[in-house]
Amino acid sequence: MNYTLERMTPLSACRLGLDTHQELTIYLRQDSPVCRSEGFSALSRVLVRTEQRHLIATLHMVTGELLMPGEIGFSESAWKRMGLKPGTSVWLSHPKPVQSLSYIRSKVYGNELQAEQLQEIIDDIVAGRYADVHLAAFITACGDDKLNIREITDLTRAMVNSGSQIEWGLPMVVDKHCVGGLPGNRTTPILVSILAASGLTMPKTSSRAITSPAGTADTMETLTNVSLSLQQMRQVVEQEGGCLAWGGAVRLSPSDDLLIQVERALDIDSEGQLIASVLSKKIAAGATHVVIDIPVGPTAKVRSQAAAEALATNFQAVADTLGLKITTMFTDGSQPVGRGIGPALEARDILSVLKNHSDQPMDLRQRAAEVAGAMLEMVNEVPPGEGYNQALELLDSGAAWDKFQSICQTQGALKEPPIAPYRYELIAHTSGRVNRINNRQLAKVAKLAGAPADLAAGVDMHCKIGDSVKPNQPLLTIHAESSGELSYAVEYLEDHQGIIEITTCEVV
Amino acid sequence: MNYTLERMTPLSACRLGLDTHQELTIYLRQDSPVCRSEGFSALSRVLVRTEQRHLIATLHMVTGELLMPGEIGFSESAWKRMGLKPGTSVWLSHPKPVQSLSYIRSKVYGNELQAEQLQEIIDDIVAGRYADVHLAAFITACGDDKLNIREITDLTRAMVNSGSQIEWGLPMVVDKHCVGGLPGNRTTPILVSILAASGLTMPKTSSRAITSPAGTADTMETLTNVSLSLQQMRQVVEQEGGCLAWGGAVRLSPSDDLLIQVERALDIDSEGQLIASVLSKKIAAGATHVVIDIPVGPTAKVRSQAAAEALATNFQAVADTLGLKITTMFTDGSQPVGRGIGPALEARDILSVLKNHSDQPMDLRQRAAEVAGAMLEMVNEVPPGEGYNQALELLDSGAAWDKFQSICQTQGALKEPPIAPYRYELIAHTSGRVNRINNRQLAKVAKLAGAPADLAAGVDMHCKIGDSVKPNQPLLTIHAESSGELSYAVEYLEDHQGIIEITTCEVV
Repeated sequence: MNYTLERMTPLSACRLGLDTHQELTIYLRQDSPVCRSEGFSALSRVLVRTEQRHLIATLHMVTGELLMPGEIGFSESAWKRMGLKPGTSVWLSHPKPVQSLSYIRSKVYGNELQAEQLQEIIDDIVAGRYADVHLAAFITACGDDKLNIREITDLTRAMVNSGSQIEWGLPMVVDKHCVGGLPGNRTTPILVSILAASGLTMPKTSSRAITSPAGTADTMETLTNVSLSLQQMRQVVEQEGGCLAWGGAVRLSPSDDLLIQVERALDIDSEGQLIASVLSKKIAAGATHVVIDIPVGPTAKVRSQAAAEALATNFQAVADTLGLKITTMFTDGSQPVGRGIGPALEARDILSVLKNHSDQPMDLRQRAAEVAGAMLEMVNEVPPGEGYNQALELLDSGAAWDKFQSICQTQGALKEPPIAPYRYELIAHTSGRVNRINNRQLAKVAKLAGAPADLAAGVDMHCKIGDSVKPNQPLLTIHAESSGELSYAVEYLEDHQGIIEITTCEVV
Repeated sequence: MNYTLERMTPLSACRLGLDTHQELTIYLRQDSPVCRSEGFSALSRVLVRTEQRHLIATLHMVTGELLMPGEIGFSESAWKRMGLKPGTSVWLSHPKPVQSLSYIRSKVYGNELQAEQLQEIIDDIVAGRYADVHLAAFITACGDDKLNIREITDLTRAMVNSGSQIEWGLPMVVDKHCVGGLPGNRTTPILVSILAASGLTMPKTSSRAITSPAGTADTMETLTNVSLSLQQMRQVVEQEGGCLAWGGAVRLSPSDDLLIQVERALDIDSEGQLIASVLSKKIAAGATHVVIDIPVGPTAKVRSQAAAEALATNFQAVADTLGLKITTMFTDGSQPVGRGIGPALEARDILSVLKNHSDQPMDLRQRAAEVAGAMLEMVNEVPPGEGYNQALELLDSGAAWDKFQSICQTQGALKEPPIAPYRYELIAHTSGRVNRINNRQLAKVAKLAGAPADLAAGVDMHCKIGDSVKPNQPLLTIHAESSGELSYAVEYLEDHQGIIEITTCEVV
């Protein structure tokens, strides 16, 4: 059908400066002749072509004067993907049906998906041929346990194939993943330091925060340069055995990033997609040995020991088929780890563990050593418990701290994390025992205070569950970079007195 | 959490003139302080409040200069639903989780949905609390046969409860529905005329075209006034026993309109949602007796007799429980009905059947009489075949034509359908027999010619499958209201010679 369109007058591209995230979006005037002749209406899927490129986008209509007649507007994502300049000629037509959507329908009707079908689905997702509603249908159709081990394995392979893959040319490259993060659980930088100090290769890429007050990349940014190209990563890893980079510069398993956005909106768990997401990123990153940390707790992603064990079994089955060596471990997911919540405050905790300070948060030290220990036990085949001891030794000897400093220097700098100028201290009004800490509300306070965009902002905890407190004893300190943000956070705190729950009458 | 926001400076409402269809959308500058403090990003769901109203909307970010600092943009749907004026004060916050989304997750995990859960889902959909991705998840989770008869019945009830309901105060009100329309299958106006003439009450509301070249409301608009309020409908029905109105003015089963948009995008059939959609609209419209016409054919919605029978059984079971009398019938779904494709051309076919012209399209007459007959047999308890004969008699006697004229007059006018000034005739180049007609491409030609917005535009067919044709015999005529649109349609036709396939060598 393109013939009609090529004979038609093209539209003129216009950058509207609208960020619709991953949903590639175009904008047309409601009175546009092409809408009329093609029968396009709001939310139609449209094939958009220039002389060089094409993509499928979702149509939004302009009823006002944002566009002149003859213009077509583009969302930022669509503008960039099409490589447009203002005024570029654009033709529109109906896209051919996306064949792989029929495989999703087939899954809804209860059929197994074959390897080639899963590959086609993932390739179409990466090519931008799925609207968000199609991603939602795929996630829902695969929800719960609707993918079997063979399908999960093929989905993982398809996700690896769809993006870049890093080859390290080494027999052993280690990595770790934590299923469903806990606030302040910033073990990764400590872990990389311990394992690289022990002689292993651990080229770690991490993400920035999406909904939390800090991601590992945000935290590391307060200490060094994390925006490394693949070539820079290789140099650091070659020299130091490990790196602590932001993953955004490398395009590993790109379909995963698109699916995760919609999964978050739906909050529908798919065990198959979780396993494929984690393992595809690790395989694409060139890992050969991976520790999977599964925190278990009433408010964690995995809520019971039975669920954790079932998940671990399936992780193992898929990894075995794909030739990836993994070990799974279950950790306490009932309360936050460390003291700081926010990039710089978490960085301070990391430094304090690595430097072996007397007031270091022992839970963070211990958890990092446990995960490192599990890795050492897997790759060195040492008896259970021995890896943990070796990890503690590398911390105590200063070897991990030396390694961390070298990695940061090689990445470009070892900086001091910034300190926030504005503070507010919450104090206890009664004596008693800390009974409960509301992690969700704590994260909210840290974000109102400015984290993660303000690197120094966040919350510093001065108590843990079970601690005894006395009147006027500080419970937490809010850190902020501006007085306005500090007062948002303080107001919120004042209206949520129960964030830290203290029981005055104890049953002993 | 509202306290923080009420103490914050409100944003100023700005109408951007963007039609995002049903997805309620707001627009914020990327550097907006509220994005930072609340952690909103593109596609976040946001609670939007004025002093009077609130809703949940999806956030798009403005990276350019479309908004001034301190402004918030609204899509047309969100602007209207909030009843805004330029500059209205608006506060934003995180919405509470929508509880009913957890029921959809529960369905994904294989649990049955209870009546109250289905009601809550439908109420939240109508209240605009679902983003399109949530609608997609609901449709997918209920796809195929994942709703049982009890769930379908409860879903139907929930959909009826969620909108307006019309009470006619009569013991019998008849209606009909056709599952998956065929091009040109414009039986409804004929049917209403026959049945009202026979003394039945048939207050018919119809839709406009969404993807086809004409809906019944578009066709009737060329003959009379179809934009009736509920009160006007009542007056016409009281006086004439029937009406032919556009359904848009009455808000029946509003969740259905929202779900249908996303169902179309996904193309996932859910038998349960189909049944609930059809029956909820009929019950809400106050019908007591309904004929369900199920066309069966290789390119129809229902493709086999077995599938049609299974569907009919489930329709019957749900209708029985809800106290609705229905009869299902299976009709030929293999080729278009009548000659005209486009509002005015279809209106002409209707008039020709009602006026009993010698050259009337016999297939349209016969099909209308079959559906009317099925209704007469159901409500009058006459023997099979007798209803069909009675329907033909009402056509032959002129009673149906009289009734049609009275209905149109009472609705405000009986107009002549417009005639298009621009024509193009496609002629046969060989002699032979018509073997195949591509309905999809024919619809495309009619739309390129301007249908349904140009009421006179469309395609007039001069042949049916099985007809013998000779060289220079006209096969079809394109009608258009402008020369530009005529040439789009002709160009398309020239490039798709096989729209009407003629076989020259026949096996006799």
